[in-house]
Amino acid sequence: MKLQSYVCGKWYTSPDEGVASYDASTGAEIATVSSAGINFKDMLEYGRTVGAPALAKMTFHERAIMLKEVAIALSGFKDELYDLSYKTGATKADTWVDVDGGISTFFVYSSKGRRELPNQPHYVDGGTEALSRNGSFLGQHIMVPRRGVALHINAFNFPVWGMMEKLAPTFLGGMPAIIKPASGTAYLTELAVRKMIESGVLPEGALQLICGRTGDVFDHLTCQDIVTFTGSASTARTLQSHPVLAEKSVPFIAECDSLNASILGIDAVKGTEEFDLFIKEVAREMTTKAGQKCTAIRRAIIPRSLVVDVQEALVARLAKTVVGDPRAEGVRMGPLADLGQRKEVIARVEDLKEFCSVVLDGTTAFDAVGADYAKGAFIKPTVLYCDKPLEVEGVHAIEAFGPVTTLMPYETTAEAVTLANMGEGSLVASLFTFNTDIVRDVVLGVGAYHGRLVVIDRSSAGESTGHGSPLPHMKHGGPGRAGGGEEQGGIRAVKHYMQRVAVQGSPNVMTAVTGRWTTGSTERSMDVHPFRKNFDEIQVGDTLHTKPRIVTLEDIEHFANFTGDTFYAHMDEEAAAANPFFGARVAHGYLLLSFAAGMFVDPAPGPVLANYGLNDLQFMKPVFPGDTLHVRLVCKQRTARMGQDFGEVRWDVTITNQDKEICANYELLTLNERTQ
Amino acid sequence: MKLQSYVCGKWYTSPDEGVASYDASTGAEIATVSSAGINFKDMLEYGRTVGAPALAKMTFHERAIMLKEVAIALSGFKDELYDLSYKTGATKADTWVDVDGGISTFFVYSSKGRRELPNQPHYVDGGTEALSRNGSFLGQHIMVPRRGVALHINAFNFPVWGMMEKLAPTFLGGMPAIIKPASGTAYLTELAVRKMIESGVLPEGALQLICGRTGDVFDHLTCQDIVTFTGSASTARTLQSHPVLAEKSVPFIAECDSLNASILGIDAVKGTEEFDLFIKEVAREMTTKAGQKCTAIRRAIIPRSLVVDVQEALVARLAKTVVGDPRAEGVRMGPLADLGQRKEVIARVEDLKEFCSVVLDGTTAFDAVGADYAKGAFIKPTVLYCDKPLEVEGVHAIEAFGPVTTLMPYETTAEAVTLANMGEGSLVASLFTFNTDIVRDVVLGVGAYHGRLVVIDRSSAGESTGHGSPLPHMKHGGPGRAGGGEEQGGIRAVKHYMQRVAVQGSPNVMTAVTGRWTTGSTERSMDVHPFRKNFDEIQVGDTLHTKPRIVTLEDIEHFANFTGDTFYAHMDEEAAAANPFFGARVAHGYLLLSFAAGMFVDPAPGPVLANYGLNDLQFMKPVFPGDTLHVRLVCKQRTARMGQDFGEVRWDVTITNQDKEICANYELLTLNERTQ
Repeated sequence: MKLQSYVCGKWYTSPDEGVASYDASTGAEIATVSSAGINFKDMLEYGRTVGAPALAKMTFHERAIMLKEVAIALSGFKDELYDLSYKTGATKADTWVDVDGGISTFFVYSSKGRRELPNQPHYVDGGTEALSRNGSFLGQHIMVPRRGVALHINAFNFPVWGMMEKLAPTFLGGMPAIIKPASGTAYLTELAVRKMIESGVLPEGALQLICGRTGDVFDHLTCQDIVTFTGSASTARTLQSHPVLAEKSVPFIAECDSLNASILGIDAVKGTEEFDLFIKEVAREMTTKAGQKCTAIRRAIIPRSLVVDVQEALVARLAKTVVGDPRAEGVRMGPLADLGQRKEVIARVEDLKEFCSVVLDGTTAFDAVGADYAKGAFIKPTVLYCDKPLEVEGVHAIEAFGPVTTLMPYETTAEAVTLANMGEGSLVASLFTFNTDIVRDVVLGVGAYHGRLVVIDRSSAGESTGHGSPLPHMKHGGPGRAGGGEEQGGIRAVKHYMQRVAVQGSPNVMTAVTGRWTTGSTERSMDVHPFRKNFDEIQVGDTLHTKPRIVTLEDIEHFANFTGDTFYAHMDEEAAAANPFFGARVAHGYLLLSFAAGMFVDPAPGPVLANYGLNDLQFMKPVFPGDTLHVRLVCKQRTARMGQDFGEVRWDVTITNQDKEICANYELLTLNERTQ
Repeated sequence: MKLQSYVCGKWYTSPDEGVASYDASTGAEIATVSSAGINFKDMLEYGRTVGAPALAKMTFHERAIMLKEVAIALSGFKDELYDLSYKTGATKADTWVDVDGGISTFFVYSSKGRRELPNQPHYVDGGTEALSRNGSFLGQHIMVPRRGVALHINAFNFPVWGMMEKLAPTFLGGMPAIIKPASGTAYLTELAVRKMIESGVLPEGALQLICGRTGDVFDHLTCQDIVTFTGSASTARTLQSHPVLAEKSVPFIAECDSLNASILGIDAVKGTEEFDLFIKEVAREMTTKAGQKCTAIRRAIIPRSLVVDVQEALVARLAKTVVGDPRAEGVRMGPLADLGQRKEVIARVEDLKEFCSVVLDGTTAFDAVGADYAKGAFIKPTVLYCDKPLEVEGVHAIEAFGPVTTLMPYETTAEAVTLANMGEGSLVASLFTFNTDIVRDVVLGVGAYHGRLVVIDRSSAGESTGHGSPLPHMKHGGPGRAGGGEEQGGIRAVKHYMQRVAVQGSPNVMTAVTGRWTTGSTERSMDVHPFRKNFDEIQVGDTLHTKPRIVTLEDIEHFANFTGDTFYAHMDEEAAAANPFFGARVAHGYLLLSFAAGMFVDPAPGPVLANYGLNDLQFMKPVFPGDTLHVRLVCKQRTARMGQDFGEVRWDVTITNQDKEICANYELLTLNERTQ
């Protein structure tokens, strides 16, 4: 079978032979891969001119719904994807991480997009900056979709998840993508892309696929494009040296292999739950996907006093790992990707043996279950031990990308921190301890060298997602050897596909650009009470000025006695006089809020269904008995929820006194009926 | 005079001759510059081992105070700095931008740091992520100081501001710096560094200086260091190609020259205020610092119908520009940096003449005021006109780094957007219009190609900071030709000097790491009411569970009549039953808040001085007549303000009903007395 690429809206077959890929367990040929003949310049231009405008004009919520619909469509083809995944050497559990994990990433971003992003095409980033004394000139950062293409170059180990974890924030940010999977397992990515395209959910030009080499695609990148890479650090360096990246300032997000560490806390001696959890996690990280995971535990950093206990427990646990064809009954760990990878891993283990003794050697021939060792890339778990890890740099730099880990002893927590950081930048580290002092020392000590830190103890183990699992919510990536990039991390990741721009101008400019009423911009006065308008009739800037109300001493005392809030500042003239902020008896803050509601409320049933919250309330001036309150209510922002018959309205509420001094300001949140 | 470098805590003089720098107006020699003999590896290591730990252990507030004290110290030497600045060719107004602007950046970051950052060494980035069904495993991003050195390579045009705008976020983020000024004006930077060092405010190792070449400093960078560069795009490309940046994933923040545009709106015809403001701003941007500004207006994009009006008005205005030695009476524009720069600018103008006609030619010899044209690098404002700018790429790519601008006509707003974007990435664009539809179209149309957008109209002009002024509050940098980096932008810039790390673990882990009580972590029950503890006695996690209170129908009606909030959901059983969220009469949200305050208040005078605000209030379940309320109050966060005799305490308040359902949750903010 020749794999196809998806180019400029059509499936494309290269005329030449291409490179073959093989079943990792049996060595049988699966497909050939070639990108010969593709016009990469056209492909980029197609994404920029067809895909980018289509996505950029959609709102975040529309893009989020799109992600959900793609995920639902792809879920219907899980059986096909699983069948193909076994050929990569993945077990059912590995495939769950890849296929279900990939689909789930789309669901998570879909839900986050609707919850955390506005229902408009661009993002308002942070608060308004006061740049002038009288407020006529302000600043506001916004983020807009980049008008180029995201080129995603992915690794062989997670052909589905590796693509989808990048596509989710790309699409949500409003950018089209070109996917370039590793050739060895491109057949699985190609099937997933085919099903996504066939779903008809994505706009034309949003998604293209290169099966095979990237040719001269880098030569045609512009300042609006972005490149991401997942794979080995050495390949990342090569790609990153392409001059176009510097010339055009094309962002390059890398996520590379790293020498990830797991630290067993000095408190977690044999017999503690944390000890057992550590052994289980190291073994799991070694054997999941046969250790071909960028996040796998390569360095197990353990108290010197526990070396024997750890070695015994880990070897005992790993002895249970049944290795063979993932389609065979009882197999817990599949082969490496191909025979070349096995050769590579064995060579790296040999390198490590220069500084390490062997605790468990899995690099020699054995009977693989349901398979022929000579044809499949099988290898067994391998454990090394480095007795003087502070003195050896190589053990923190050489990575065997398979089921291999090295045990390293430490004396003090500070020494464990030093060892972890000797990896010169990792994707992840984990810590097993039930002592929060150790947590604080390790997290703050290793934080600058790691992208993610997982702390596991008896209280969280049951629900922990584990050392090696990147999650859409959390940053994936790390400094130094790990590539210096950031993928995922919730809405943070979406922003990597957008351009931040600082906008400066008048309040009306800010309101026009952000769609959010800004203090100082035009108030739209109205004939009807704004609470009588339904969601679709309300406009940003609609304003109500209430009639005044005097706050009396009787009101304050009455409120105090009714609510029980008899705080001295409200009740005791002498004590209140001594308070540094008041100097006399003052009204309760909650009395102001309650009176304000009474002043702006419109009692009869109408389109306002509920007040569901309140934000950023600041009491700025005390209100004294006899003061007269005025309230201004302005529609600040409207957010329609797709598929709901009400929308959310944010109101800016300002309470002033008879001297026009602002006593309180807050955001009021209501749910309002829609027209239909 | 030989300039010195500041290396490993000592002033260093190179043994060799070095390169001379000259007075821009007179050609007289000022100083010689050389870095020969400096051990750059030691310099970096000194910063990492002495400066980095000292800064990293300080809190953000301590670093902020440090910035303020440095700024105050430097303010005492303004006269000396001004005297030296004139030699660079800067006028008094130019020097105000450089010297006062630089000092002011420290003040702004100092104030922002204390207002927007916590009083602890690391930053809690965003909210807690729910990663598990029962809440025993959570996620939280934090940012910690990088453990390396920030190497700042700066341009010749703003020797003080150019250094200080980078130092402010670097120091606030907890990183030490090495400053490498451009050799031509390093004498002014050296004086400012000397005064900062002599102030004694900075910890040892926080600040070093290289006067002269950078030698092999790049060879010794590690994954914890960071490089910033300000200057020409071509130099940036050269530096960025050093392999260590990719190999060690060293972040490289660039801010380069770009072909910045200013757009005159189609509404802003002759006679409007916006027309006059535009002419004034283009002339100002051309002549400030003799046009040697990365942000200067290189392309003036104007309606075709206004070409003649703009040419006439601009030429008339520029005719008033008196050019000469900035120390001479009446001079409004000084010389370029040196004769080489003048040759360079004239050569670029010649290049541009290939596509442009000349409106005003300032490149020929003239009588400079108080100076000799042959000895100083004088040039007059030069205006070009390109009639078909859509068809000519060069006019959007060739930059004359002097008082030069090119006028370009457009027909429609969409065409103006296209022209602006043909700069392939700029630091800034501006727009002069009083029409918010044009604002929206231009801002969203050019946003992806620009770092900053300034909209100026009659309402904001009086307070506008102008097209060309980077501000500490706003992002400075831009995509593509502008280098792709981000400097400044408020607290955003500080984060560029920190490492983001995702932490996962139990609620107690989150509380230990963030210093902020996290839902689900241990509640510290107490003998005394938490409101009886002063700021220094309160601990995060201190908890009060109140006695219950029943809400009756009488309470609701009483509250409604007292406050005037007679909304039907509280008063009318039938109408309330029809409400989709309630189904029956419910208590007012403000009644719940008021009762809650009554339940947890401690009336007598004590350490709690005031409730100054409330955040993130969410009403989650309606409260019906007869429901019983319980309130839990937990100390969530403590923030001491340096030099104030009270601190801020954030309380997590949860109101539950008799079924333990959460009815409302919010953050309560109080000011509490300190011990001393």
